Amino acid sequence: MQKILRVNTRTGALGFESCGEGTARLGGRALIAHVLLGEVPPTCEPLGRRNKLIVASGLLGDTRVTTAGRVSLGAKSPLTQGVKEANVGGTAGQALGRLGIRAVILEDAPASLIPRVLFVDAHGARLMDMPELRRASVSDTCRFLRHRFGERVGVLCIGPAGEMGMRAAGIATMDHTGVQVRYAARGGLGAVMGSKGIKAMVFDPQDAPAPQFHDAKALSEAGKELARLLLEDPKTENRHNFGTPAVLALCNELGILPTRNFRSGNFEGALKISGEAIASLIDKRGGDARKGTPCVKGCVIQCSNVFANAAGKAIVASIQYENIALLGSNCGIDDIDAIAELNRLCNEVGLDAIETGAAIGVAMEAGVLDFGDADAARALLHEVRRGTPLGRIIGNGAAITGTVFNVRRVPVVKGQAIPAYDPRSLKGIGVTYATSPMGADHTAGNALETAGTVDPRGTEGQAEVSRRLQLRAAVLDSLGVCLFIRPAFVKKPELIADLLNARYGWGWTYRDVRAFAAACLADERTFNERAGVVEPGDLPEFMRDEPLPPHDTVFDLPLEDLERTWTADPPDDVF
Amino acid sequence: MQKILRVNTRTGALGFESCGEGTARLGGRALIAHVLLGEVPPTCEPLGRRNKLIVASGLLGDTRVTTAGRVSLGAKSPLTQGVKEANVGGTAGQALGRLGIRAVILEDAPASLIPRVLFVDAHGARLMDMPELRRASVSDTCRFLRHRFGERVGVLCIGPAGEMGMRAAGIATMDHTGVQVRYAARGGLGAVMGSKGIKAMVFDPQDAPAPQFHDAKALSEAGKELARLLLEDPKTENRHNFGTPAVLALCNELGILPTRNFRSGNFEGALKISGEAIASLIDKRGGDARKGTPCVKGCVIQCSNVFANAAGKAIVASIQYENIALLGSNCGIDDIDAIAELNRLCNEVGLDAIETGAAIGVAMEAGVLDFGDADAARALLHEVRRGTPLGRIIGNGAAITGTVFNVRRVPVVKGQAIPAYDPRSLKGIGVTYATSPMGADHTAGNALETAGTVDPRGTEGQAEVSRRLQLRAAVLDSLGVCLFIRPAFVKKPELIADLLNARYGWGWTYRDVRAFAAACLADERTFNERAGVVEPGDLPEFMRDEPLPPHDTVFDLPLEDLERTWTADPPDDVF
Repeated sequence: MQKILRVNTRTGALGFESCGEGTARLGGRALIAHVLLGEVPPTCEPLGRRNKLIVASGLLGDTRVTTAGRVSLGAKSPLTQGVKEANVGGTAGQALGRLGIRAVILEDAPASLIPRVLFVDAHGARLMDMPELRRASVSDTCRFLRHRFGERVGVLCIGPAGEMGMRAAGIATMDHTGVQVRYAARGGLGAVMGSKGIKAMVFDPQDAPAPQFHDAKALSEAGKELARLLLEDPKTENRHNFGTPAVLALCNELGILPTRNFRSGNFEGALKISGEAIASLIDKRGGDARKGTPCVKGCVIQCSNVFANAAGKAIVASIQYENIALLGSNCGIDDIDAIAELNRLCNEVGLDAIETGAAIGVAMEAGVLDFGDADAARALLHEVRRGTPLGRIIGNGAAITGTVFNVRRVPVVKGQAIPAYDPRSLKGIGVTYATSPMGADHTAGNALETAGTVDPRGTEGQAEVSRRLQLRAAVLDSLGVCLFIRPAFVKKPELIADLLNARYGWGWTYRDVRAFAAACLADERTFNERAGVVEPGDLPEFMRDEPLPPHDTVFDLPLEDLERTWTADPPDDVF
Repeated sequence: MQKILRVNTRTGALGFESCGEGTARLGGRALIAHVLLGEVPPTCEPLGRRNKLIVASGLLGDTRVTTAGRVSLGAKSPLTQGVKEANVGGTAGQALGRLGIRAVILEDAPASLIPRVLFVDAHGARLMDMPELRRASVSDTCRFLRHRFGERVGVLCIGPAGEMGMRAAGIATMDHTGVQVRYAARGGLGAVMGSKGIKAMVFDPQDAPAPQFHDAKALSEAGKELARLLLEDPKTENRHNFGTPAVLALCNELGILPTRNFRSGNFEGALKISGEAIASLIDKRGGDARKGTPCVKGCVIQCSNVFANAAGKAIVASIQYENIALLGSNCGIDDIDAIAELNRLCNEVGLDAIETGAAIGVAMEAGVLDFGDADAARALLHEVRRGTPLGRIIGNGAAITGTVFNVRRVPVVKGQAIPAYDPRSLKGIGVTYATSPMGADHTAGNALETAGTVDPRGTEGQAEVSRRLQLRAAVLDSLGVCLFIRPAFVKKPELIADLLNARYGWGWTYRDVRAFAAACLADERTFNERAGVVEPGDLPEFMRDEPLPPHDTVFDLPLEDLERTWTADPPDDVF
């Protein structure tokens, strides 16, 4: 029986409970939606006592299925004021799954904030004051905790930004080698964790009994089939070789690469910051630099990398497309080393690089600093770390930065920054930004993958594209697997039910999986409705008014089309 | 026939139209609600092209009825994201009424902001670039415009805060002597005016034909009766002698005087900042100092004052209770001269002193400056004027300040600062804050006046108290008269219909007036619902959790009671 650990961060009370009828068949994102809807007042203050931070392992989190082991974090978001789930690889999810813990729920909030660490192992859980970690960087925190508790532990932690309640703060984790820092970045969940006074959670899987599966052999076979299908898909090799930056050149070509605060979809410096350029630099520089590394043990895609400076010293791992775009082209910066340094600073301070890059772009629009001025951007991030008024503005994200500096061109939907796909020339993702309960989040349903089959700049069929992608994402985010395994499920849709049935013996069909996805989104939408989040949340007005070069497109899907996304009959084919 | 002037601030097009069927019987606040609901997309960006700033004269705005001539300003609020109306005395409303203009509607927004002045007289309207007014203080602006256009004009203008799009910015006007600066302060309407690139509106009533009334004799008689009833009410004399600060001692006694960011309802320095203390200082200091002055010509109450420094030089006119409370006790400041100087700076920079005082209190809570440090508070207001990052935070109001500085105790409802009546010990006004479409605004329904008949700390009957007061306020705000004439209408409720019938010949009854109020609020609530404003907007969590000294009360009205405020049957007796 899977367990839920509740932590009252005000009283310090800790308690395990068994997953009951309502939660036994939920994991990851779907579990978060369920808990939020059932337990958190939708209109509560996101950083107040009534919000809860939920850490949930996926339904396949304790298996060796490839990429499984991502962990979901969720709460009412201080950015969107609605439901938020963000998931991440690294070791924390696998450790949690191995401990048989389906969720950790941080409740209430302490009267005063002393950095505390929640330690969980097979023998129980405890809270420890660790004032020495106050305002510690993410890598210092992880290093300290791995030294203290051993290298086998999984860690989730926040940086100074989360401690200071900044709404661009994410929650960081590390891979098993202690090199990669990865983020459940979006939605300001790091600020929620900070509001609970929890600097880090440490999960030690040692001494945990081996998980019992309904049909271990069938599970192993379905897992092998999944890996096989994945490895034969050409996207997998491309991702392995170039990582997520592989898509930068494509996005530039499509005219959707955010450039100078979304003034253009084309960046003249694109070649210098592309996946190919990065791969070649990694090859050339050697030292710590690596391509094709995994973020969770057992991943067959291995799309991560370690980006090193000219001296071969690791700067940021892994460097990702969205971060390059928001901190790079969006700020008019074409120097990949400067971008990597900005990304490193975001990682150390504990910031979502997407939200932060967007905020810096808005500050550039306001004239606080110049487009292309990487030194000034770096200085800004140091201000964030120090918590100066200017730093706190940036650290609270693009919407707050736009408000404070009186900017009209602010690329946010529902309070959250638009990621690295300008929706004017990729309209399906615009539907996702507008209609996903997650707000502007590419992982909630990224239409880039349909750009070859559905005209990305046309208005036809975009709502259907988005809905299908969103349902799909809801399933993957609940299994605890990576979105990049989707090609295998597209080829063999019944594989999801096969995996779940082998793990749990539920006897599910493909239709049950689809209903599961729909229920997850319905819970999320209900929460948002009660929270007063306007759905659909329209795109920023400037994206409806201002043509985007090079295709001179505006976002012209009528609001009624967006509204139909969830009211029309659902598609039969989720995957 | 009354006219509406539309100004396209992007193209510069100006056009007059006659009030049609939908608007002929609307004025002030009710007209604003109607125009917003009909013409402004509820989810639009408040400082974007789709919002409109509406200036509306009251239904009695062209009459000599006492206190008539207040002008209403309205828009979608950048603070609450919902409907907002704020009204103010001074000369602008009477000038507008005299010109036969029921409303001026500023539409769209210019691509770049050069300070412009809208000049309107009996011969037409025109827009004039006045770059010399860029970032000019409110008094400099008014002085310049009165010099340029003559002292008979009515002026509405913004200060640097409005030009910089700060959400605590109000819209200022002057009395006919050029001494008093008064504000349509709340809701961030100054920022909306700034977004339209309009630094000032100047209304010159010279050459306007005398207004034609349906029955001038009956109007005059009803007006005289109103004045008579008002003058025999004891509150009128008290208000004349001590102005709004008269209630400070009462509020302190009730335990609702905001003190140190709403940590207490009792201020140890209350006696030093009370109405009596101020009146005695004014008497002693002489020079410019004055008590009992009118803000609109023809007012029989005359509750305004001119507060002078020890040398007899005018500092602020008029000094008001809410400003003293928010800038004074709420910041732990008991030096009335220091408070007056803070108030003067707010007036000059163009800030709502309530919102700004609350923001400074929140900054004090965050440790940015100390409670009681008037010098530091003054320095903060200079930062606002200069537009520094810190100044822009404060100038954007209490909610933004709380967000940026990670404060949990933020006294706002629906994004707008709570005025000078702590709802934990005056629960009826708490209902108003939660259920009024205006958010936390004492003028929308101030339960202080019922504190003698309904237990202010009890839970019984508060929703009914608030609803009645809110309906009442909606009528008065639409007539263009002062809330302080209410005692006359309470004694003789049919007087409102008498006045309207004499002015227009509508043949209204008391029931029509009540239906008018209900329709106004219904329009506003519909707009808010579509805008995603959560109604009722609950009070800040700390007010439900943290007992307020000296009575150790929390706000304990259940959310369901608040919800019932507008769903229960309406009261028969509005007044």
